[in-house]
Amino acid sequence: MPQPKFARESMTVMTEMVLPNDTNTLNNLMGGRLLHFMDIAAAIAAQKHSNRIVVTASVDNVSFAEPIRLGNIVTMKAQVTRAFSSSMEVFIEVWAEDIPAGVRVSTNSAFYTFVAVDQSGRPIEVPAVVPETDEEKARYDSALRRRQLRLVLAGRMKAQDATELKSFLNQD
Amino acid sequence: MPQPKFARESMTVMTEMVLPNDTNTLNNLMGGRLLHFMDIAAAIAAQKHSNRIVVTASVDNVSFAEPIRLGNIVTMKAQVTRAFSSSMEVFIEVWAEDIPAGVRVSTNSAFYTFVAVDQSGRPIEVPAVVPETDEEKARYDSALRRRQLRLVLAGRMKAQDATELKSFLNQD
Amino acid sequence: MPQPKFARESMTVMTEMVLPNDTNTLNNLMGGRLLHFMDIAAAIAAQKHSNRIVVTASVDNVSFAEPIRLGNIVTMKAQVTRAFSSSMEVFIEVWAEDIPAGVRVSTNSAFYTFVAVDQSGRPIEVPAVVPETDEEKARYDSALRRRQLRLVLAGRMKAQDATELKSFLNQD
Amino acid sequence: MPQPKFARESMTVMTEMVLPNDTNTLNNLMGGRLLHFMDIAAAIAAQKHSNRIVVTASVDNVSFAEPIRLGNIVTMKAQVTRAFSSSMEVFIEVWAEDIPAGVRVSTNSAFYTFVAVDQSGRPIEVPAVVPETDEEKARYDSALRRRQLRLVLAGRMKAQDATELKSFLNQD
Amino acid sequence: MPQPKFARESMTVMTEMVLPNDTNTLNNLMGGRLLHFMDIAAAIAAQKHSNRIVVTASVDNVSFAEPIRLGNIVTMKAQVTRAFSSSMEVFIEVWAEDIPAGVRVSTNSAFYTFVAVDQSGRPIEVPAVVPETDEEKARYDSALRRRQLRLVLAGRMKAQDATELKSFLNQD
Amino acid sequence: MPQPKFARESMTVMTEMVLPNDTNTLNNLMGGRLLHFMDIAAAIAAQKHSNRIVVTASVDNVSFAEPIRLGNIVTMKAQVTRAFSSSMEVFIEVWAEDIPAGVRVSTNSAFYTFVAVDQSGRPIEVPAVVPETDEEKARYDSALRRRQLRLVLAGRMKAQDATELKSFLNQD
Repeated sequence: MPQPKFARESMTVMTEMVLPNDTNTLNNLMGGRLLHFMDIAAAIAAQKHSNRIVVTASVDNVSFAEPIRLGNIVTMKAQVTRAFSSSMEVFIEVWAEDIPAGVRVSTNSAFYTFVAVDQSGRPIEVPAVVPETDEEKARYDSALRRRQLRLVLAGRMKAQDATELKSFLNQD
Repeated sequence: MPQPKFARESMTVMTEMVLPNDTNTLNNLMGGRLLHFMDIAAAIAAQKHSNRIVVTASVDNVSFAEPIRLGNIVTMKAQVTRAFSSSMEVFIEVWAEDIPAGVRVSTNSAFYTFVAVDQSGRPIEVPAVVPETDEEKARYDSALRRRQLRLVLAGRMKAQDATELKSFLNQD
Repeated sequence: MPQPKFARESMTVMTEMVLPNDTNTLNNLMGGRLLHFMDIAAAIAAQKHSNRIVVTASVDNVSFAEPIRLGNIVTMKAQVTRAFSSSMEVFIEVWAEDIPAGVRVSTNSAFYTFVAVDQSGRPIEVPAVVPETDEEKARYDSALRRRQLRLVLAGRMKAQDATELKSFLNQD
Repeated sequence: MPQPKFARESMTVMTEMVLPNDTNTLNNLMGGRLLHFMDIAAAIAAQKHSNRIVVTASVDNVSFAEPIRLGNIVTMKAQVTRAFSSSMEVFIEVWAEDIPAGVRVSTNSAFYTFVAVDQSGRPIEVPAVVPETDEEKARYDSALRRRQLRLVLAGRMKAQDATELKSFLNQD
Repeated sequence: MPQPKFARESMTVMTEMVLPNDTNTLNNLMGGRLLHFMDIAAAIAAQKHSNRIVVTASVDNVSFAEPIRLGNIVTMKAQVTRAFSSSMEVFIEVWAEDIPAGVRVSTNSAFYTFVAVDQSGRPIEVPAVVPETDEEKARYDSALRRRQLRLVLAGRMKAQDATELKSFLNQD
Repeated sequence: MPQPKFARESMTVMTEMVLPNDTNTLNNLMGGRLLHFMDIAAAIAAQKHSNRIVVTASVDNVSFAEPIRLGNIVTMKAQVTRAFSSSMEVFIEVWAEDIPAGVRVSTNSAFYTFVAVDQSGRPIEVPAVVPETDEEKARYDSALRRRQLRLVLAGRMKAQDATELKSFLNQD
């Protein structure tokens, strides 16, 4: 089994300028194009953690609260939160910046999961993740709950077995 | 308030051929590129229902179970399931086809939500959805639960208020 | 020789949103970009009929009567009309839709021909086409005349031997 | 009415390198992508003749006899052949070159037509074309026949009125 | 005149994955595509320093020593070195990484210059740069020499007036 | 050693139309995109001279004096100036044309260098260049000076050994 690695070792920063073909008729970045950018940034983080080819396994719920404009600079920070055998969860945050206007807003965050594979596409074990900061530890702990939600939504776990998820939703 | 419309009136079929730039080093379609295709197909369905400019509000959890290969044909079917004031949920199914090999597989399904906006980007009310088939009715009914999950995950609803969602997860 | 197939079995629907890079300085879809979209839609129909890799052999005269605008939705319907040994003629119709404006116009139709090839690029026989509807039968019958016109224009048939074509042009 | 111009004044040479995304699964340039390249080259020739914004009005029958490979250099030469009020016919020839292999083949030729328009998209008269070489004169003369064929195929002229076209097809 | 800013305030990190269409027939990143990536990264750094729209004014000599492969991750770090009225020099370093192979190499560095402009495209003054580290100071000092070389090469300064440049080349 | 070839035999003309995705928020062609166009045009010229696969080795200082607008036609002329063993220097000139406005300006020129390689990427000798016109001879002669500047800037030659370069800068 591979040596555990620190969460921060997979940190990836990616920057994109919003070009005309990325935008809709309101001159705003299309949601699907942003999901495409985020997938690439998150895949690089998962590659860094596993030193393997990785394939996207899932993306969790993503909300698009803020419009991102043509010419804006999109910055993404991605970092692996936790590994489960051959799969890795990656947390990714997105900021949009209108630099001439001096405005920078947090626009999105999301969790993507990736599976590390060998050259023939077969899953292969990855290092465990060692969280260090409080934020990394919190995301490491809650990863189990998100994993149960993914499995329930994909029909691969019964709702009543998702104990972590249920205790979270039932808390008051 | 606009006239209700049938769910089927928004049905949209979109077909794409997987080109080299859509693929990773294993020659498989990248997950983010598929999310981009799906966003466009779903946006067209939402446009058809509302006859408005629409912007992506969210995408729910999407899993990528099957690799889609270079040269495959990707077919997407998108249809509005339910409307909430200015927002619409769209259900989208994806198939991949290696036609020379005679293989066609169901690869994904997802729920995207869109908001209808006017020319200045302000939300604007959309028609209610009238489901007809059993499948359409089932998706119409479960839309409320998915909406609560989105709001909880976005931190805009407390878990204990998500009554539909909780009764679903606590059923046995 | 492969089993004959119905014309409708090759029906392909493709939808594209007109993006900025597809347009000229008047914000209209460039003719060449539409020809590119149509070629992909028609190739998928020919693939479906033959279950083979296909290569474009020709496109017949295409007129561009209606401008298609940035943000419009382009819908293409393609279907094989008739096969000649290893080649297939595909009929393709195009509609453009400005959905917020509630306007949908028929903009083009065209005939593309494709040749089915094996992995080394050699032509290979395809199934005969069985037309069912009146429209399919009319296109099946006129396919011979269009084929003669193609051969005459390509310098591979003498004008006086194009009997179908001449009787069509000389009718009154 | 604008001053007549020589055919050669519109001569346009365009060169493209075939990149991965332009190719099909046999690594050959897709026919539709070549039609897109040709449309741009021909549009530039029509712009040069008219000094106007131009929009594609039609493309005549194009055959694709020779495969063009990934990495090949595609050279296009386009020149206006004749003008009819606000429309121009452009002749375009295509060569493909595998330079390391020292192979250069003529792959296609085609006739595109364009309409010159003003800023609001209304047709506007263009200069007459003055052919000089024998080839230019031959293409100038045969332009009338091709025009009749286009009008017949577009259903805008009756076959029996296409006198130039009929005398061409009936010659022996 | 705007407040001076630290060099580090403009630091920009940009990451790109090399996709098929970025490569030549040897599957290596094309030099021109890398220059395009570098221009965008450097432009963002210049935007951050000036809080203005910026346009590329020049790029200095760039060498391409190491091939960068399909699927590699390209990381660029860009930072403004010095400002001259409305123009800024940006230093940019590039690394290529084959993550599964665990190989990371420094491949390039370059100096781009940008001019800050207002909405009508007129040059506008930018803040002075305050270097802090030894490297930043060295690049700040040598910026004058590089500027003279640019002006000589552009024919806008006589060689004998390029005192900084000459004393550098004549040193022994 | 291969037969010498005339400089003019490598002449390459490339034409591009500036599309939306090539432009910045001022609707001007981005500098990096132009460098990408120029690299392809110059690479074709180097291919023609050597009949080999070529890889970009360097680009010399390029200035961007004139904005090039959306919809403009960019024409590039590239020609090999001199060869050094396996490397070739290519001179490339760029014009931008707003055809409807009847305006054509010279916007740039640059020197790119390429190395000819065999299928495994190893450098391979190329023909010597035979200049014929006065301009070709002047560029042939000054190629040595530019080569020394490249080597000095890349840290592969000491400034005091760049005799051609120094005598040029010290002339009065």
